[in-house]
Amino acid sequence: MRIDVLTLFPEMLEGVFGASILGKAREKKLVALSAINFRTYATNKHNTVDDYPYGGGGGMVLKPDPVFAAVEDLEVAPDTKPRVILMCPQGETFTQAKAEELSRERHLVFICGHYEGYDERIREHLVTDELSIGDYVLTGGEIPAMAVIDSVVRLLPGVLGNESSAVTDSYSTGLLEHPHYTRPPEFRGWSVPDVLISGHHGRIEAWRREQSLLRTLQRRPELLDKVELTSKERIWLAEQKKNSEEDGVDK
Amino acid sequence: MRIDVLTLFPEMLEGVFGASILGKAREKKLVALSAINFRTYATNKHNTVDDYPYGGGGGMVLKPDPVFAAVEDLEVAPDTKPRVILMCPQGETFTQAKAEELSRERHLVFICGHYEGYDERIREHLVTDELSIGDYVLTGGEIPAMAVIDSVVRLLPGVLGNESSAVTDSYSTGLLEHPHYTRPPEFRGWSVPDVLISGHHGRIEAWRREQSLLRTLQRRPELLDKVELTSKERIWLAEQKKNSEEDGVDK
Repeated sequence: MRIDVLTLFPEMLEGVFGASILGKAREKKLVALSAINFRTYATNKHNTVDDYPYGGGGGMVLKPDPVFAAVEDLEVAPDTKPRVILMCPQGETFTQAKAEELSRERHLVFICGHYEGYDERIREHLVTDELSIGDYVLTGGEIPAMAVIDSVVRLLPGVLGNESSAVTDSYSTGLLEHPHYTRPPEFRGWSVPDVLISGHHGRIEAWRREQSLLRTLQRRPELLDKVELTSKERIWLAEQKKNSEEDGVDK
Repeated sequence: MRIDVLTLFPEMLEGVFGASILGKAREKKLVALSAINFRTYATNKHNTVDDYPYGGGGGMVLKPDPVFAAVEDLEVAPDTKPRVILMCPQGETFTQAKAEELSRERHLVFICGHYEGYDERIREHLVTDELSIGDYVLTGGEIPAMAVIDSVVRLLPGVLGNESSAVTDSYSTGLLEHPHYTRPPEFRGWSVPDVLISGHHGRIEAWRREQSLLRTLQRRPELLDKVELTSKERIWLAEQKKNSEEDGVDK
């Protein structure tokens, strides 16, 4: 896979592209990552890439010409149509399903604005996808692009070993993860639950499933609607819910 | 404000801490940003910070001792209780309201795991908040921590000039932003809408409001429930919705 990021701050991306999973994927030639400063495509003498908005109002707007020129100057392999992704607050909310979809592409291009709005013609005639990583205001598209890139690249065949299995687990069951414990068995008086050192595999599995269900109920109950549960589990969850509501009334 | 990030990959954060708004906020001494490698707090001879999970299963788990030691070794100003934030998929979903809440603190500490799970005693006895930036799987907590830090620091008094007003607008009205246009007025045959060059302030405002409503209806209709609208706007939106549903049936 090839990934190009158009940005005015390429130095923000370099540390991330070189480290951890992305760095390893790059070394193994599983992905080619570039950060391109689209200011080099400015056509005016001051190298400006933004200008005042038509119709007035605060803020600046990214001009269409340098962004189109930068995208059109990218090397594209034969028979490949890059996905051109605009990171913006109005975009579709990024999800794991979208990460999986993007991981099947051969070439991704990210356009990262910074402070400014985008000239609408970029949206209408250049980009194929608009993505937002969540409902909070960020200074630019660089950090969101990193999030999307990290989540996509880790799905590429050959990138991950077994090292990430714990993290992936929680999404494959659709539930939040159960608690984890490691050495020491006692730390400052806080012990590992007995069941985990019992050696009884069946009881460990049952405890973990119960903890996952409980944590999901407490923190993200809406996820339970999408999960396959046994009728015994549904009854148990309804009881837990009732108990916690009664506790709430008592307080 | 002081922000410390505990990570095994401090180099991921350095480029981001030095650039753009975070770099400027740091230069103006409005925020102190540090990335601390908690591997230096490992107590065993191989400097390992993770270990196998009790009860078996794949993946590794971050040990409690180096994380507690790193947090307890931080310099904390008198009468300050840092918020200790764990970045994890099970956390509360980060929102703009949470960014505003955190921007009123004096000291934030972020704990970033990488691949691994966290020993549950870290969650129970050390952290004050658990945050997730969205429902997608990432390799570690570093990119999510950057997102939270960026959104918090830009809210600190004195950090932003007027440069970001366009971005902030969309959240202050609760609607998605209207389209923006800047020079050139015609680009490859695509023109700026006439209304924006009409010079008629009232009509420009009306067009922008209508476009914001329309875009929100099309992309994030659930946001409309939380927005104050005139009854005229409600009627207009209901008509637009009906029209688009009819278009959908025709196809």
